[in-house]
Amino acid sequence: MLKNDLFLRAARGEHTERPPVWLMRQAGRILPQYRSLRASLSGFKELVETPELACEVTIQPVDELDVDAAIIFSDILVIPDAMGLPYEMIPGKGPFFPRTITSAEDVHQLLEGEEAAASINYVFDAIELTKKELNNRVPLIGFAGAPFTIFCYMFEGQGSKTFSKAKKVIYQNPGLAHILLDKITSSTIAYLKNQIKAGADLIQVFDSWAGVLTPHSFATYSLPYLKRIVDEIKDVPVTLFAKGTWHSLNAIADTGCNVIGLDWTQSPKDVRKLLGEKQVFQGNLDPCALYADADTIRKMTNTMLHEFGPHYIANLGHGVYPDTPLDNVKVFVETVKRFNLVENT
Amino acid sequence: MLKNDLFLRAARGEHTERPPVWLMRQAGRILPQYRSLRASLSGFKELVETPELACEVTIQPVDELDVDAAIIFSDILVIPDAMGLPYEMIPGKGPFFPRTITSAEDVHQLLEGEEAAASINYVFDAIELTKKELNNRVPLIGFAGAPFTIFCYMFEGQGSKTFSKAKKVIYQNPGLAHILLDKITSSTIAYLKNQIKAGADLIQVFDSWAGVLTPHSFATYSLPYLKRIVDEIKDVPVTLFAKGTWHSLNAIADTGCNVIGLDWTQSPKDVRKLLGEKQVFQGNLDPCALYADADTIRKMTNTMLHEFGPHYIANLGHGVYPDTPLDNVKVFVETVKRFNLVENT
Repeated sequence: MLKNDLFLRAARGEHTERPPVWLMRQAGRILPQYRSLRASLSGFKELVETPELACEVTIQPVDELDVDAAIIFSDILVIPDAMGLPYEMIPGKGPFFPRTITSAEDVHQLLEGEEAAASINYVFDAIELTKKELNNRVPLIGFAGAPFTIFCYMFEGQGSKTFSKAKKVIYQNPGLAHILLDKITSSTIAYLKNQIKAGADLIQVFDSWAGVLTPHSFATYSLPYLKRIVDEIKDVPVTLFAKGTWHSLNAIADTGCNVIGLDWTQSPKDVRKLLGEKQVFQGNLDPCALYADADTIRKMTNTMLHEFGPHYIANLGHGVYPDTPLDNVKVFVETVKRFNLVENT
Repeated sequence: MLKNDLFLRAARGEHTERPPVWLMRQAGRILPQYRSLRASLSGFKELVETPELACEVTIQPVDELDVDAAIIFSDILVIPDAMGLPYEMIPGKGPFFPRTITSAEDVHQLLEGEEAAASINYVFDAIELTKKELNNRVPLIGFAGAPFTIFCYMFEGQGSKTFSKAKKVIYQNPGLAHILLDKITSSTIAYLKNQIKAGADLIQVFDSWAGVLTPHSFATYSLPYLKRIVDEIKDVPVTLFAKGTWHSLNAIADTGCNVIGLDWTQSPKDVRKLLGEKQVFQGNLDPCALYADADTIRKMTNTMLHEFGPHYIANLGHGVYPDTPLDNVKVFVETVKRFNLVENT
């Protein structure tokens, strides 16, 4: 049915003529049409919570960049919001939670599972509408934050260099930590299943703050919950992107996820050596590489494509930075599209 | 001459009965005597720039915690300050540079080498005074920021999650980046040599932001400058602590540095496997582990000590967080002091 199913075929481990390409945060400030729509609105949440608007900005990069996948415009923080901790998005600063978790009682009062997920209808509606409007041009990616990353925000209330308030809980009250992680996980699974019902073709889970954990803490407080999500999502491929977890790539592969997302500190040769030629990877150009001139971008991109070889989805190692010149993003996308896997690897 | 030379013997790769122990940021907010002195002053820079005060807070943790080394109270940002870019310390926010580098002309105007270092007399005076006041109880560590980390602040003007402004320069103008890194390096070498003349017994170089670089960028924009510093410091041992550079530990060892500092994402067993039993490591307990109860701290610390074995300096994997309970810091220090290397490894 899909006119361009390159991304899904690659995610399933099938042969592709060239690597598919998309960018994390492709629906966002790099696009003038996004900036102009965003300027006309009251705030970020209006965009996330209005399906017609979310649909519009989701499709903008497909029109403008001709990428091989769309990702529904939303935010990982809709889950804590739905569980009972609303967030605000402060311009120029980022997310902020007026209330955070300060006691076991706070944890017990949070909604979980289907009961939490049900209130995120605006995302399911946005996915349905986007699938219709995309008219099978490219697949649509659904997503959620990993339980540990959501846990971080629930205690910290905002971004942090160390997430020491959240980590304090895992050292001082591991039992409570697991109760909360369990509630977040059940909510996330229900949320993702509803995204798939609404039409999402692949699910990506973002463990944005996993890198603040020791290998042992990651194995204890993040990985088992990622595994549960992978186990429960049966109908579509799953991508796990746990930033900064270079020490646990084998364990991430063992969850049975289809695709492993990589940040830019990983060397393609090393991960191929570790997990073999058949593991599907996604990533991992340094987002700052797109500040370079066109020739340099082409050269770095081609080196990366060559080193990953087949079973690979081209992307950056992080969301594209908002001040990246649009022309440079296009050079990146076009370089991937011109790469012939048979000739070059 | 030193009554307690355990730290220096370990740093030089000699046998020690137990691992020496100190903490990064031990002279700071964890101590009530520091907080009370700090509250009486106009600001952070008064403390850094007044030798008598810097001396006082440097010795506080030796008195209170009985650690095996003191580290001169100062800041890595004295170097950009001396080169011509003054910094301010904004309470609750961190460092801020009213002027940053915006052109090649800005780079050319910076002082370098001995000319830059000469103006940091207040640190050399603080070291001389502290050596006298310490009266050979324990060695005194001198330090500086790594050239790449200083480079980051010179463009960014403050802390950042991505340091994308600084990284933009290495992708857009690598030639200018190397000119600036060279000037920072010559200033840092002169600065460190003067610290040694004033009495510093070991030098630690902090590459706090090296982790934002790809392995290739680290090898190009950080490592050669670290190597130059190690080559130039001949009279005392050198510790390199490049946070987040798990991918380049072999190359860091190849600089010839005496001690490799490790952050908490490294597994002691893995680094021993990689670099052998004779490499001296320093680190690397998760700073958040000190939020746990005393028994848990003892257990985690003993596991770490056992796994590193000999040729090792106990520390955290990062500076101790300001809200760490003092009693927990003491449990950590005492656990190391009770550990018998002969019996336990």
